[in-house]
Amino acid sequence: MNGAESLIRTLVSQGVELCLANPGTSEMHLVQALDAVPEMRSVLTLFEGVATGAADGYGRMAGRPASTLLHLGAGLANGVANLHNARRAGTPLINIVGEHARHHVAFDAPLTADIEATAEMASGWIRTTKQPTLAARDGLDALTATLAGDPFSSIATLVLPADCSWGEGEPVSVARIERQRHAASSAALESAERVLGADTLLLIDGTGLSEQGLLAAARIAAATGTRLMTPTFPARVESGPGLPAIERMPYFPEQIIELMKNVKHLILAGSEAPVSFFAYQNLPSDLVPQDCDVVRLAHRHDDTAGALEAIASSIAAPAVGDLSEKVETPEPTGKLSTRSVAQALAATIPDNAIVAVDSGGGGAAYPALQRAARHTWLNLTGGSIGQGGPVATGAALACPERPVFALLGDGGAGYTIQYLWTCARENLDVTTIIFSNSSYGILDTEYRRLGINEVGDIAASLFDLSRPNIDWCALATGYGVPSIRATTAEEMVAALKRAQEADGPMLVEAMV
Amino acid sequence: MNGAESLIRTLVSQGVELCLANPGTSEMHLVQALDAVPEMRSVLTLFEGVATGAADGYGRMAGRPASTLLHLGAGLANGVANLHNARRAGTPLINIVGEHARHHVAFDAPLTADIEATAEMASGWIRTTKQPTLAARDGLDALTATLAGDPFSSIATLVLPADCSWGEGEPVSVARIERQRHAASSAALESAERVLGADTLLLIDGTGLSEQGLLAAARIAAATGTRLMTPTFPARVESGPGLPAIERMPYFPEQIIELMKNVKHLILAGSEAPVSFFAYQNLPSDLVPQDCDVVRLAHRHDDTAGALEAIASSIAAPAVGDLSEKVETPEPTGKLSTRSVAQALAATIPDNAIVAVDSGGGGAAYPALQRAARHTWLNLTGGSIGQGGPVATGAALACPERPVFALLGDGGAGYTIQYLWTCARENLDVTTIIFSNSSYGILDTEYRRLGINEVGDIAASLFDLSRPNIDWCALATGYGVPSIRATTAEEMVAALKRAQEADGPMLVEAMV
Repeated sequence: MNGAESLIRTLVSQGVELCLANPGTSEMHLVQALDAVPEMRSVLTLFEGVATGAADGYGRMAGRPASTLLHLGAGLANGVANLHNARRAGTPLINIVGEHARHHVAFDAPLTADIEATAEMASGWIRTTKQPTLAARDGLDALTATLAGDPFSSIATLVLPADCSWGEGEPVSVARIERQRHAASSAALESAERVLGADTLLLIDGTGLSEQGLLAAARIAAATGTRLMTPTFPARVESGPGLPAIERMPYFPEQIIELMKNVKHLILAGSEAPVSFFAYQNLPSDLVPQDCDVVRLAHRHDDTAGALEAIASSIAAPAVGDLSEKVETPEPTGKLSTRSVAQALAATIPDNAIVAVDSGGGGAAYPALQRAARHTWLNLTGGSIGQGGPVATGAALACPERPVFALLGDGGAGYTIQYLWTCARENLDVTTIIFSNSSYGILDTEYRRLGINEVGDIAASLFDLSRPNIDWCALATGYGVPSIRATTAEEMVAALKRAQEADGPMLVEAMV
Repeated sequence: MNGAESLIRTLVSQGVELCLANPGTSEMHLVQALDAVPEMRSVLTLFEGVATGAADGYGRMAGRPASTLLHLGAGLANGVANLHNARRAGTPLINIVGEHARHHVAFDAPLTADIEATAEMASGWIRTTKQPTLAARDGLDALTATLAGDPFSSIATLVLPADCSWGEGEPVSVARIERQRHAASSAALESAERVLGADTLLLIDGTGLSEQGLLAAARIAAATGTRLMTPTFPARVESGPGLPAIERMPYFPEQIIELMKNVKHLILAGSEAPVSFFAYQNLPSDLVPQDCDVVRLAHRHDDTAGALEAIASSIAAPAVGDLSEKVETPEPTGKLSTRSVAQALAATIPDNAIVAVDSGGGGAAYPALQRAARHTWLNLTGGSIGQGGPVATGAALACPERPVFALLGDGGAGYTIQYLWTCARENLDVTTIIFSNSSYGILDTEYRRLGINEVGDIAASLFDLSRPNIDWCALATGYGVPSIRATTAEEMVAALKRAQEADGPMLVEAMV
């Protein structure tokens, strides 16, 4: 068995069962290994940013890593932006990056590049295999790193020289490696418990946003008056009727400063203290008021849900009835807007959906869906747009029985629109909503925040996606995905109903 | 004047007149500067890989760098693959990458990343500006690096923290910095001259492939029997009637080994000695036979054309008549194939065109066009597919009066197809030909080269772009570019004629 097959078989034995692949010539022995090991599902993407983003979506839903298969430094580079997002999400993920055979690197053939340097931006664990007999062992070490509960190593990049693929390998069989979740210390539990109350904000992320974590948090809130909130961009939130409706921290620093004004104690439950997303000339980066004390209950990869349960139990907080109840959302009518798109989705969303959002209007659906139906909400985490579609793809691969929605601004959708093709090929139940306003709306807003009232022609042209307008329905056709254009709220509702009836993917261009 | 404006004004004063832009919030002051300095033409792209590839195409044609404007580490990462190609092309190019304000970096906001590490793969000059007053000076240093004639520094990446954009800057005015081209030493000239003859291969790249260099090379060949050749992937070749038809080195190592068997002397005129593009188990990396001696005449960035002229003059080689003559190519008929597409292009190509190729069938047009019309040929240089469309875009921006053709395989076109939108927006005369065979054909070939006769289902699925077929005409519609599908050679000829009549871009999907 060669090194490539030893690696793939070892990963499969550990429950790594999906490979998002963009192979090239230096990965041909890995392709041969994937061909020999059908237990690893191989899914082709048209662009590496789709592969890495889909691996992120899969990992968030499955809790085990998918692997990617990328072609040398350039292939990795194409996937780095969504690896950055995945790192911010804390998703376990293994990249397998082909490299020239070791003896070939020194000849500086055209595709030669510094792969490890390229991995640096978004990988906490990076290794180049030194011998074919070490390929499987390195794969196991990569897996261990992704599951170690270390926020910096959840993205593991294994660089595999071609001769370590084709040379004789040795598969490794060890007991299943489980994801590590560190329990909060009793000191941390006590510190948090001590400050619960009406002027305290419990900022929850990580497993604290699972059903288990949220139910415990709701008990704490009801018993003590503590306010609950998620960060602006948590990776995954369970949401909907039967769970507490939990607010998101707003985006702009002025809003966060306003919110934090009366917070005397901030408990970080799997979250980080709020900082400004960008720097502004007259605003601080650190958004925690000076007189607010910050208590660390748990880090992102820790067992935050368990910590919240421990506190709820310690204070003997009773189970609560004050949970979000299912409320039928009336179907919107009239003009289509970001708000009415969100309302149309709330009116039609089936139970047990997954909703992946990117930049653009998607965030408006968050509060609208809280009473509509149980669902899992997946955010754009690292701010690098073009994540939502690939994440939806990966979520659908992880959860084939669940309907998936991708809510994408048109600016961000333009980055990785090739994911539609993989949705068509794998017949994934992904409904894409494009918030089509023909602009990078956030940039126009941010530009005016500089204090500029009149936007000059050149500046305006850099925020503008008209001239020509992108025809998203035509792009969907190009990638084999049926589509509908909605120009009114009624059409939007009808389109979403049709998308649910359809088998496989659908794109709805919402002309907001 | 703030740092951002001081930088843009300084670059403009040095003849940097095009900015391929994908700005984000951290670049708002740079947008403001672009708005204030219309002498810098600002062109928006939908994806950073388009921006960097277009800057490459511009730089190859203009001989002066374009700049890019990229958003933090993730934006740079999206552009790295085409920067890698540009580095291999030796193109002068300046990246301006926004960074968080210096005081903000430590807060690890979501988009924070190691920008310099990400630049490492494809930039030879990297600097983060330390003070707003240094922004313009750093821009000048970046320009100097791109023009220094150092093969490793032609791609310069300047990381500009937001506070160095908004803080008070100081423009710098110095004499125009010119591109450095080192002259060959007399020792190098003599060494090369000494080995000219029938068993010598003169391998020409860089400025040796300009009209001046090729005419000198033709004189040398005619006078001494020396064989002329370009490397497999030279960045730019002047070609067509009136110039010597010059062969390209083939791609596969077996072919190069066969070719090199009888070469006793190899003269590197702006080129590197041939190495295998990839490593194979039973083939060498170094493709120069042991008994062949290698003479270095000039490095890629040197004045290779001048060196060839010096040799031609030293050996008193007369001007030659044996140049490629214009021959009308008959219009092909019948079945559409890679060959008949090339023939259709040869039959219809206007004079003075620019032809940019990516992976896929485009290479077949190289010999077919040598007698058809004068043109400039731009290759995929670094092997990272998805370069051809963006390079064509940039070439059209550099040379608005010249018709541009992009010859793209469907696999590679899928990477950066967003360039079509920029072609539509800027109304660029770019005719795209997609060689649509619904497969990564090269991978199927390479897989079989492993000695595998039967390709398993999973392996086959990883080379296959059908299920569903990509509808390239629909994608063109999506991006506002008119299109024609050609299924026969006659239709291909008609489509190319229509593309020439049209004002602005056109896509022809060639069903090969």
